[in-house]
Formats: sequence, C-alpha cells, structure tokens
Amino acid sequence: METVYIGKTKDVYRKEDGNFLLKFKDDVTGTDGVFDPGANTVGLTIEGAGQAGLRLTQFFFEKINAAGIPTHYIDADIEQATMTVKPAQMFGEGVEVILRYRAVGSFHRRYAKYCNEGDALAGYVEVTLKDDDRNDPLITADGLEMLGIMTKQEYQTLVEFTKQIGEIVKGELAKKELELYDIKFEFGRVGEDNHVALIDEISGGNMRVYRNGEYIEPLQLEKLMF
Amino acid sequence: METVYIGKTKDVYRKEDGNFLLKFKDDVTGTDGVFDPGANTVGLTIEGAGQAGLRLTQFFFEKINAAGIPTHYIDADIEQATMTVKPAQMFGEGVEVILRYRAVGSFHRRYAKYCNEGDALAGYVEVTLKDDDRNDPLITADGLEMLGIMTKQEYQTLVEFTKQIGEIVKGELAKKELELYDIKFEFGRVGEDNHVALIDEISGGNMRVYRNGEYIEPLQLEKLMF
Repeated sequence: METVYIGKTKDVYRKEDGNFLLKFKDDVTGTDGVFDPGANTVGLTIEGAGQAGLRLTQFFFEKINAAGIPTHYIDADIEQATMTVKPAQMFGEGVEVILRYRAVGSFHRRYAKYCNEGDALAGYVEVTLKDDDRNDPLITADGLEMLGIMTKQEYQTLVEFTKQIGEIVKGELAKKELELYDIKFEFGRVGEDNHVALIDEISGGNMRVYRNGEYIEPLQLEKLMF
Repeated sequence: METVYIGKTKDVYRKEDGNFLLKFKDDVTGTDGVFDPGANTVGLTIEGAGQAGLRLTQFFFEKINAAGIPTHYIDADIEQATMTVKPAQMFGEGVEVILRYRAVGSFHRRYAKYCNEGDALAGYVEVTLKDDDRNDPLITADGLEMLGIMTKQEYQTLVEFTKQIGEIVKGELAKKELELYDIKFEFGRVGEDNHVALIDEISGGNMRVYRNGEYIEPLQLEKLMF
C-alpha cells in the first residue's frame, strides 16, 4: 500500500484496488497536553482514542449509508483501527460543513448581538474553508461559487444531506439522553459522476454533545454510546 | 424638528411631515488624525467634507431613483448639507451590503488561499452585520433568516438591487476613467408595504476607487467626478 498522507489524527493509504485505507491514530488534537477537538495541533496521545473514534464513525456511517445518503464509507476494522473508503475529491483544498442546533461556539461569538448563548437553532448550516492560517473563515454559497470551490447545485445538495445526516446523529444520541448542540462534517465528490458524498469521520471530536446541560467529552461520548 | 440621532458623520432629524433630514457633517472617520473611511471613530474635521459627500450621494441617488430602483432619497440641499429622506426601518440593528469587483480588503484577507489580491470578481455580494465590537461579522442568507433579521425573499431582492446599483455607480465612475473595486451599501424597509430600498449615503467613504492602479482618496473622488 502506498502512503498518501500522514495526518494529525489519521494516516491515509492507497490500496491496490483503488480504494483508500484510513488509519485512526491515538494522537488527539489539543494545546499544551490538554485535549481540544477544535485545536489544529496534536496535543497528546490517548491509548484507544483511534479505535473509539472509528467505532463511532462506523456506527454513524452505516446508519447514513442505510438511509441512502451517499458516503465514502465501505467498511471498518476496529481491531486494526482502519476504515476502507472510496476515493473522494475535496472541494477546493477542503471545506467544513457545520450544522448547529444551539447558538454556541463561533456562531455565538459572531452573532451575540442577535442571540444568547445556547439559544435553539432550527438546524442552521454553514460552510467554512479549511485554512488554519486564517481561522477557517466562513464563506457563503456565492463565495464558494465565485472562487470555483463548488457549484450552487452542489451547495444545495450538501446542505440538504447535512440536515438529513444531522437528524440521524441527533436521533441516535437522543436514545442515550444526549443532546447534539452542533456537529461538523466533511463532504467531497465521489464516483465517476462526482456526486456529493459525506467523507472523513464522525466521532466525538466532530461534535458538541451535552447531557442535562453538561458537556460530554469526546472519549466519554463513545463510552456512553456503546 | 426633533433630533433623532447624533452620529459620527451625520445627524438625523425628524421633520413635521414625517420625513427625515440627514445633516452631513465635516467630521470624518479616522484614527489618530488620519482619514480612514473604514474606521469606527471620528478622526478629524475637514471643511467641506459634508457637502462633498452629499454632492456624490445626490448624484448617485438621483440616477438610481431614475432607474426605478427603490431608495429613501427625496431631495438634497447642498448649501445646507442636508438630505431629505423617507422614513426607513433597518434590518435588525443594521446590516452592510458589500459588492465586490476586485478581491481586496477583508475578502482577500479571508480567502487568500483561493485568490490573489486584486483578482477580478464578477459582482460578488455579501452581507455583514453592523457590530463594531465584533468587527462587522459576515453572515449568510440562512443566518439572516435564522436570526430574524431578514427573509430569504428580502435577501434575494437586496442582492439583485445591489448588482443593479453597482452597475450604475461603476458606469458613472468609468466615464471619468475611474475603476470601482468595491462599494458598501445600506438597505432598509421603506413605505407602508415595507419594500426593500437603498438608504443612507453613497459617497467616497463607501467605496474603493482606483485610477490606473492608484487608489483615489474619498475627497479627491468628489473633485474628479464634478
């Protein structure tokens, strides 16, 4: 297998059949040795973090595939902490799609003049560019089109899929009395027809989850779910 | 006449007939005594600055009214540096609408991964919230709707009007061999039917204008135009 990319929390290999293998690592992002899912640097290594992230990812991607929403997911090997996925093309150099059910984090920081922290939001979707140097700037559908990152049609499809996927994740969490505040996804183009599909992972580090108003740590989330 | 508001560069009075009078002042925004149209504080006083701003505003608003695009403008008295306008309701606590023909300023700072400074843009429109404390954050059509600031229909109307008005301003500047890089507008709801209309002013401080690649100062612009 050819090594394609050594990442902060995952390594990527190209398989002989053209698919890719994602290896989930025990390295987690953080600052000064403290775990922070939003950080852009590796902060520490936690044994079992890779398997925990993959277990949640497998759980959600299988539900999403079963619902008929396109993803890059093929299968997962928990023992090896690897996931086999279809090849995907990023939008530009990568975008993040954020779905918000509560006004927290950067949404509240930006729009505090018009909302209180924790206000309910009816599944608000926004797209940011993956750009560490510029703090992942927000971008509109017009901006994405103007800069050649995605078409308006792709944007609309992506927003629609995001809301459908969000309902699946929210519903599964609710079964364990967990409330989803917000979640970020990655999408890409998959297949010969370049259709919009969910890629990357869905683990604790991608979402803010609360139980009875108390924040649930990403690694704690995996324990509560299974 | 009742004093409604004492602003940084304009004062607002309510007339007996229900219309409003805007008094353009010679105070201009800036920092440490240096003129900066983007600053949020009054920097210095320049004799004639109020009349110069009003002259350009009158010129553009009369062209825009003549083109059938709704505005709040009724008439202007250059001598007194006053403009009579229809009452208007702001969107939320005020939004700014930016139209960009070149990738400069905050657009380039945000999206430098995907564009070079000065790249041509095909009339890109974006909306920011007027919020000095939060550096006028960018907001999407979905965000504006979610926070109850404007409807999707109002957003679409506002974007359409912005592009039409931009073509008028761009065309007038081009007659003097001036190139419009970007311009910001304010819109509000006017009349009993609350229709979307251009409000505030259109003067040198609202736009970036260049001639042969050289930036034209706002007060210089008025001299070149008339």
